[in-house]
Amino acid sequence: MPELDIYGGSLALCTDLYQLSMACGYWKAGHSEREAVFHLTYRRPPFGGGYAIAAGIAPALAYLERLRFTEDDLAYLATLTDLTAAPLFPPGFLDYLRALRFTCAVDAVPEGSLVFPHEPIIRVRGPIGQAQLVETALLTLVNFQTLIATKAARVCQAARGNPVLEFGLRRAQGFDGGLGASRAAYIGGCAATSNVLAGKLFGIPVRGTHAHSWVMFHGDELASFRAYADALPGNCTFLVDTYDTIEGVAHAIEVGRELREKGYPLGGIRLDSGDLAHLSIEARRMLDAAGFSDAKIVASNDLDETLIASLFEQGAKIDVFGVGTKLVTAFDQPALGGVYKLGASRGEDGQWRDAIKLSEQPIKISNPGILQVRRLRRDGELVGDVIYDSEAGFTGPALHDIEDPTRPVWAPAYETGEDLLVPMLDAGNRVREVDSLDVARTRAARELGQLSPRTRRFMNPQPYPVGLDKHVHSRKQALIATARGQR
Amino acid sequence: MPELDIYGGSLALCTDLYQLSMACGYWKAGHSEREAVFHLTYRRPPFGGGYAIAAGIAPALAYLERLRFTEDDLAYLATLTDLTAAPLFPPGFLDYLRALRFTCAVDAVPEGSLVFPHEPIIRVRGPIGQAQLVETALLTLVNFQTLIATKAARVCQAARGNPVLEFGLRRAQGFDGGLGASRAAYIGGCAATSNVLAGKLFGIPVRGTHAHSWVMFHGDELASFRAYADALPGNCTFLVDTYDTIEGVAHAIEVGRELREKGYPLGGIRLDSGDLAHLSIEARRMLDAAGFSDAKIVASNDLDETLIASLFEQGAKIDVFGVGTKLVTAFDQPALGGVYKLGASRGEDGQWRDAIKLSEQPIKISNPGILQVRRLRRDGELVGDVIYDSEAGFTGPALHDIEDPTRPVWAPAYETGEDLLVPMLDAGNRVREVDSLDVARTRAARELGQLSPRTRRFMNPQPYPVGLDKHVHSRKQALIATARGQR
Repeated sequence: MPELDIYGGSLALCTDLYQLSMACGYWKAGHSEREAVFHLTYRRPPFGGGYAIAAGIAPALAYLERLRFTEDDLAYLATLTDLTAAPLFPPGFLDYLRALRFTCAVDAVPEGSLVFPHEPIIRVRGPIGQAQLVETALLTLVNFQTLIATKAARVCQAARGNPVLEFGLRRAQGFDGGLGASRAAYIGGCAATSNVLAGKLFGIPVRGTHAHSWVMFHGDELASFRAYADALPGNCTFLVDTYDTIEGVAHAIEVGRELREKGYPLGGIRLDSGDLAHLSIEARRMLDAAGFSDAKIVASNDLDETLIASLFEQGAKIDVFGVGTKLVTAFDQPALGGVYKLGASRGEDGQWRDAIKLSEQPIKISNPGILQVRRLRRDGELVGDVIYDSEAGFTGPALHDIEDPTRPVWAPAYETGEDLLVPMLDAGNRVREVDSLDVARTRAARELGQLSPRTRRFMNPQPYPVGLDKHVHSRKQALIATARGQR
Repeated sequence: MPELDIYGGSLALCTDLYQLSMACGYWKAGHSEREAVFHLTYRRPPFGGGYAIAAGIAPALAYLERLRFTEDDLAYLATLTDLTAAPLFPPGFLDYLRALRFTCAVDAVPEGSLVFPHEPIIRVRGPIGQAQLVETALLTLVNFQTLIATKAARVCQAARGNPVLEFGLRRAQGFDGGLGASRAAYIGGCAATSNVLAGKLFGIPVRGTHAHSWVMFHGDELASFRAYADALPGNCTFLVDTYDTIEGVAHAIEVGRELREKGYPLGGIRLDSGDLAHLSIEARRMLDAAGFSDAKIVASNDLDETLIASLFEQGAKIDVFGVGTKLVTAFDQPALGGVYKLGASRGEDGQWRDAIKLSEQPIKISNPGILQVRRLRRDGELVGDVIYDSEAGFTGPALHDIEDPTRPVWAPAYETGEDLLVPMLDAGNRVREVDSLDVARTRAARELGQLSPRTRRFMNPQPYPVGLDKHVHSRKQALIATARGQR
C-alpha cells in the first residue's frame, strides 16, 4: 500500500483538536462505544460542472488501518492546558487513546466512480469515539483527490483523447499536494506525470526532457539541443521557446535529422509561451515538411480545460497537453467542500436514532439514516441514483428531490441497479483490497462514457438525477418537523 | 528540525523528471560540477496585493540537507525507458546520483521577511548538476508557504488585531498542505490552529471545542453543552447554530452559569452560519446581560479578509475569527507562481557568464548575475529595495525599473541598508540555524508595520519600489541586446 508511504511517524494527530475534545467528551460520559454512522458527502459539483470523480479512498483507508496514538503523541497531548491552566485532557482519556484501535466498518465507493451531490462517498459505522475522530483526515484526503480527479477528467475531456501530462509539482500545495494530485489526476484520465516519486510509488508513467535553463546554460540553443541528444538520444522533446520559437523549431529539426541518422526518432517539440495555436500550426508545417510527421507537438503554459477547448477551436495542431498549476491546485476552485455528517446513532436503549442537522439552506440539511446509493442504468447509461437506508432496504426507484421536497417525485425507467458503497473494512480489518490505479482510471473513463452529455458538458450542465427514496425522504421530513417544532 | 518530520523515506524523487534528465545531460557532457547560480523569485504579489511574506525556507533547507538517492530510488530510475524502449538513464549516471551529496552554498531571506517581485528569496550557488536538480522541491515548498503566510497576513490585517484561528485542515490539499498551511499561517500572524499535529511538530497553539455532530448525537442542545462542560469544563466555547442560534446562545449562557458556580469561566460561543454581524451583536448583548462580558464570540463560515472587513463595517461584535478553506488553500489564488531561474554559470574557462531568458513579456525576462537585495529604510520605514550583483558589489541606491527600462531612475532617500539574503548552507553544511517560528512571526509583523499603508492596502496598492542597481541593469540590457541580435 504505497498511498501513505511518503509519510513517516504517527499521523494520529493530523486532525482538528475538537475531534479529540469531543472524543474526550464521549469517553467521559461513557458513550465512546455507542454505535454511530457518519457519511462523507459533498454538496455541489466543483467547477460549475455536473459531476465529481471519487478519489482519495485508498489513502483514507490506509490512514484508518494505521491509526495509532504513539507515546509521543500522548506526551504532547498531556502538555495541553485549558482556560484555567489545568491539563486539557484527563489521564484516563489519554489511556483510552493509547489503547484505541480503529474497529469501525467502512464502506466506500470504488475509486474512479462518478459521485454526485449528497451521495455518501465513505460511510463509517462503529463506536462514535472512533468514527468521529477520523473525520478530519478522511475529509482532507477525499476532498482533495476527488477535486483533482474531477479537474483532470474535465481537462482530458477538453483534450479530446489527446494525452494530458500532469506537470504541476512545483506549484502544488506541498509535497503530498503534488503527489496526491498526480495520483488523482491519473485516475481522472491523465496519461503521465512529471513527478518521479509518483512514478515510483504509484507506477504512473513519468515524462520530461528539459527546461529553459538547459538552453540558457549553453547559451547557444542548437548546441544545447545537441548536448541533450548526445546524453538522452531516445528521449528528445525539445523546448523551443527560450529565445525565438520558430528558430527553436528549426534547431529541433536540425538535431532531429542528426538523431534520425543515428537511428533515433525525434520525440517532438514543446511550446511553452506565445500564441500556441499559431505556433503549433507553424511548427507542424515545419516538422511535416522535414519528414517528422511522427514528432509530437507538446503545449504547456497555464493551460486548463477552457484554454484547451479554445486551442482546438483555433485549429491548433497540438498532440499532447502539459497541464500544471491549474490542474494540481484546481485553480478555479481549490477546495471541494466535502462534509462528514452524523446519519444515525444508537440510543442508550440500543435503538438506532436518525440524526438531522438543520439549516436555513436546504442544501445544508443533512440526510438521516444509514445510507446507501443505488445507481440505476438503462441501455448501459446512467439514469439516476437513489439514496436509501441500508437497514430499511431499497423502497424503489422513486426519487424525492433533496433540496426541494415539494418537487414532484420522479421515477426513471431503468434496467439494472448497482449499490455504490462496498464494504472495505469490517471491524477495522480490510475485507476488500482497493483497486489498482489503472482499474480506477478505467472505471472513471467508463462511467463518464455512460453519463449523458447534458450532464457532462462544462457550461450549465443538467444536474444528474439524485434523490432520496420514499423511506429516507419521509424520515427526513419528520425529523425536520420535530426539530423545528422543538424550537 | 521538525519541518519535514511528517515524511518518511527518501524525498529525492519528489521532483520533475526533467530535472533528472538535465542532470544526466550535464553528467554526460562532463558539466555536472560547473558552478552555477539560481534564484528563486516570484513575479506578482498574490491576491492583487502589494507584498508577500517569505515562508517555507526552513523545510526547503531541511530538504536540501537530507537529499540522498536511496538504492530504492535508483532501482526505480533504472526501470525507466526511452522512446526506443532502451533504459532512459545510463548506469554511470545512476552511480553519479548514488554518490551525490548536496554541496551548494544556499543564501535565503529569513522567514517572515517581506519579499517583493523579482527579489531572490533563495539563491543556490554550486555545481549545476545539483543546483538544477533541487528546483522543483524548493519551488513546491517556498511557493506554497509564502502564499499562505501572505494570505494569513491579509486576514490578520483585516481582523484588526483580533486573534485569527486557522481551522483549515479538512479542506487542505493533502496532509502537508494542511500542515504547511498551519505553519505558514502562524508566521503570517495567525494566533493558533486546529491542527494538532502542527501543535506537536511546530509548537503552534492549538484550539478547538466541538462540532455540530456533538449536538446532533445528543439531540438536545442544552444536554449536549452540559455533557461537554462535564468533560472539559475549562475549555467551553459552545457552537450555538446547530438548530437555532439565538436559542443556542441562551443554552450556552445557561451552562455558562453552571460553570461559573463551579468556578470555571465560559470561554465563549461560536457562530458558524447565518448573519454573523447581526447574530454577533445579539449574542454579545445576551452574554453581557448575563454577566459574561469576558466570554468571546468566535465566528467562522468561509471567512476571508474581505468578509472580515465587511463584518467590521457592519458593526459585528466578533472577538475571534476562525478561518479555514479560504486561508489554507489561498482560495482566490491557490498558487504563487514562483520561478527558479539561472542567473549565471561559469564557462569552461572558469569565468562567470551571466544568463538571460528572453520573453515577449518584460516581467518574464530573467535578471542576470549573482544577485543580492539591499533593503533601504528611513525613519524605520521601508523605502525601497535594490537588486544588485554580489560579485560586482552594491553600486548605490539608484533603482532602475525592472519591467520598464525606459522609466526614469529613482533614488530614494534612506538611512540604513540591509542585505536580505543571508548564508544558510555553505558547501551543503548548515552555517546558520533557521529562526524559530515565533521569531519569524515577529519579523513579519514588524516588517508589515514598516511598510507604507499605501502598499499594505488591499485595493490597488501602490507597488513597493524595487529596482535593479546600475550594474545589473546595464548587464541585463546588454544581454538582451546580444541575445536579440543573435536571432
